[in-house]
Amino acid sequence: MLKEIKSDIYHLMHPKMAFFLTSISKDGKPNVMTCAWATPVSEEPPIVIVCVSKEAHTARLIKETKEFGINIPTKELLKALWICGRSSGRDTDKFKMAGLKILPSRKIKPPLIEGCAGYIECRVKKIVEAGECYAFFGDVLTALAREEYLNRGLWSERAGIPLHLGGSRIVYFR
Amino acid sequence: MLKEIKSDIYHLMHPKMAFFLTSISKDGKPNVMTCAWATPVSEEPPIVIVCVSKEAHTARLIKETKEFGINIPTKELLKALWICGRSSGRDTDKFKMAGLKILPSRKIKPPLIEGCAGYIECRVKKIVEAGECYAFFGDVLTALAREEYLNRGLWSERAGIPLHLGGSRIVYFR
Repeated sequence: MLKEIKSDIYHLMHPKMAFFLTSISKDGKPNVMTCAWATPVSEEPPIVIVCVSKEAHTARLIKETKEFGINIPTKELLKALWICGRSSGRDTDKFKMAGLKILPSRKIKPPLIEGCAGYIECRVKKIVEAGECYAFFGDVLTALAREEYLNRGLWSERAGIPLHLGGSRIVYFR
Repeated sequence: MLKEIKSDIYHLMHPKMAFFLTSISKDGKPNVMTCAWATPVSEEPPIVIVCVSKEAHTARLIKETKEFGINIPTKELLKALWICGRSSGRDTDKFKMAGLKILPSRKIKPPLIEGCAGYIECRVKKIVEAGECYAFFGDVLTALAREEYLNRGLWSERAGIPLHLGGSRIVYFR
């Protein structure tokens, strides 16, 4: 039976990979938030889109310094993922609060987060306004992945990469 | 062990929901392609992004008539999903080839596809070029979902919604 969906329509496009989005202020203070609204947009050259609420501290930082890091967690980081989705880095040091350790990045100023399955370092190419968010288009400068979690270039089920279904529901793929 | 990824970097952002993207020409000929590069970008108002190769027939049609339909399949439509990902509607009638039946849409001219778990009808708000693709930003005009596949507004595992991991690998969530 087909039913019209009137609120939280975006839930129909989930599950979506939930990841840590890292950024940095111009005076060098890093920040991290949990994000799931993202997609690749071009393969060659590699370009990705991440969508961030205009009100998020992260949006201000990415507009300021034009770089961001995508940090794809495993289920070991699930608790930290929730913590970083619930508070703002405007007032708190989320790295400390969530017990995250910094991994130096290679091509960008924002740091990466230790223990993730994969990383994509990006420089902002375009910023597009859409409703309550900005869509940040980023050129991929480098990408890294933990070899033991890959199977011919694709994520293995073993990696336990969290997918956000909506609300407080996290699912895994098999 | 961290390894630098040099090709198919987009695989790191998969699995991604694979869906039928429907469009129509200005003289009323419908088309369908398989797409996985998409994301919500705003909740209120609801706006989504779908990314389509500049060379795809679908890109030409969406630019022409400014509307598209997102059709979220169940595993019953998996074979059709592969067929619609492999050929161009420039030369062939993919609905016929894949055995798809049309479901009338409510607010847009492109048709929907019968038997899907959910539908999102969109009108193009913005077109952004990025590498080899266009990112089509669409205002959601209406959204529909099959009630028996929803669990408090979220997809149930029972729906069997295919997620594209990369290459020929489809996975499901649990």
